[in-house]
Amino acid sequence: MTETKRGPWTVRAERTVYENPWITVSEYDVIQPDGSPGLYGVMEPKFLAVGVVPLFENGDTLLVGQHRFALDAFSWECPEGGGANDADPLETARRELAEETGWRASHYREICSFDVSNSVTSERAVGFLATGLDPGSPDREGSEADMEVRRMPFHQAYEMAMSGTIRDGFSIILLSAAAHLARTGGLDRALAARMLPEELAGAAP
Amino acid sequence: MTETKRGPWTVRAERTVYENPWITVSEYDVIQPDGSPGLYGVMEPKFLAVGVVPLFENGDTLLVGQHRFALDAFSWECPEGGGANDADPLETARRELAEETGWRASHYREICSFDVSNSVTSERAVGFLATGLDPGSPDREGSEADMEVRRMPFHQAYEMAMSGTIRDGFSIILLSAAAHLARTGGLDRALAARMLPEELAGAAP
Repeated sequence: MTETKRGPWTVRAERTVYENPWITVSEYDVIQPDGSPGLYGVMEPKFLAVGVVPLFENGDTLLVGQHRFALDAFSWECPEGGGANDADPLETARRELAEETGWRASHYREICSFDVSNSVTSERAVGFLATGLDPGSPDREGSEADMEVRRMPFHQAYEMAMSGTIRDGFSIILLSAAAHLARTGGLDRALAARMLPEELAGAAP
Repeated sequence: MTETKRGPWTVRAERTVYENPWITVSEYDVIQPDGSPGLYGVMEPKFLAVGVVPLFENGDTLLVGQHRFALDAFSWECPEGGGANDADPLETARRELAEETGWRASHYREICSFDVSNSVTSERAVGFLATGLDPGSPDREGSEADMEVRRMPFHQAYEMAMSGTIRDGFSIILLSAAAHLARTGGLDRALAARMLPEELAGAAP
């Protein structure tokens, strides 16, 4: 192949070394930024990671709990899922929230967009705050048959993220982004004060 | 092989489908939580991701900038690197901070520990706040020859993380964790007030 550039890197050859319906693993022969030859393996997801912070009028949110296969550990998280890289992230958010929790939201607002693990993956993530919630029935995938749903005050979920009880990186970023919005005046003041009552005790009119 | 369990999952067979010095990719024949057969591919890093928020007495921090190969994009980040899974994360933190920025810290405090991308990787990360900084010379790897270092007020770096200018997920979590510590009284009050002057204007004695 023709050599291509990625910033200060040169790609001399690339090959797919593994593929399944969710990920491709590619290996690249490269010239590193210092001019020396090297090898780079990258896990390239076929999906965009999408996550949701559902927010009730009383300041509650929803976490879902499931045993994560890759780490062989139970994990409490914000509702999350994957959508095709070319799909509308908002549609993925709507589908995942409804499938995992049963709840439907009338209003979505993007609160974060980031790269999940940029040293050895090309995974990207987008997160939303969802309000105007109406109940319904979940419709889970086979891998999610054991999923639990827990409703709790937002500040309690945020504290779980800050204390390390929630270990999922995407959930930590989602809850931090929602708290930042509440703190910096990006939400209805009374709702923000219900989300973070200790911090924003004087914020409600 | 004998079947093994991972929570509600059963592993019927596993094989390594790709390996290089940094990652292993494993493929598992599984029975999903709902009882149906499935396939699971997992990227398993051979390193623990370690990151550092260096914090100067005046409230400044350091970001490093480099072109990230996996995403073909320039990225401003907290100093980060990988250490062997069985190495002391603190030693990795000391080494990476010194190698990337030249600065040495006399005091380290763990501020976060999380799973980076738990749907298709087993990657884990640990983050530290580093204080008592002394200058020195960087000693970068070949892949980091183009790295830039920028010193700036902590609140500016935190704002970059909250606004999406910093796209690296680990850096967003590191800066959020350091801000949380400052906000909740976990740091010297005067230093905390220099980190987040707008939020903590009245905090210094």
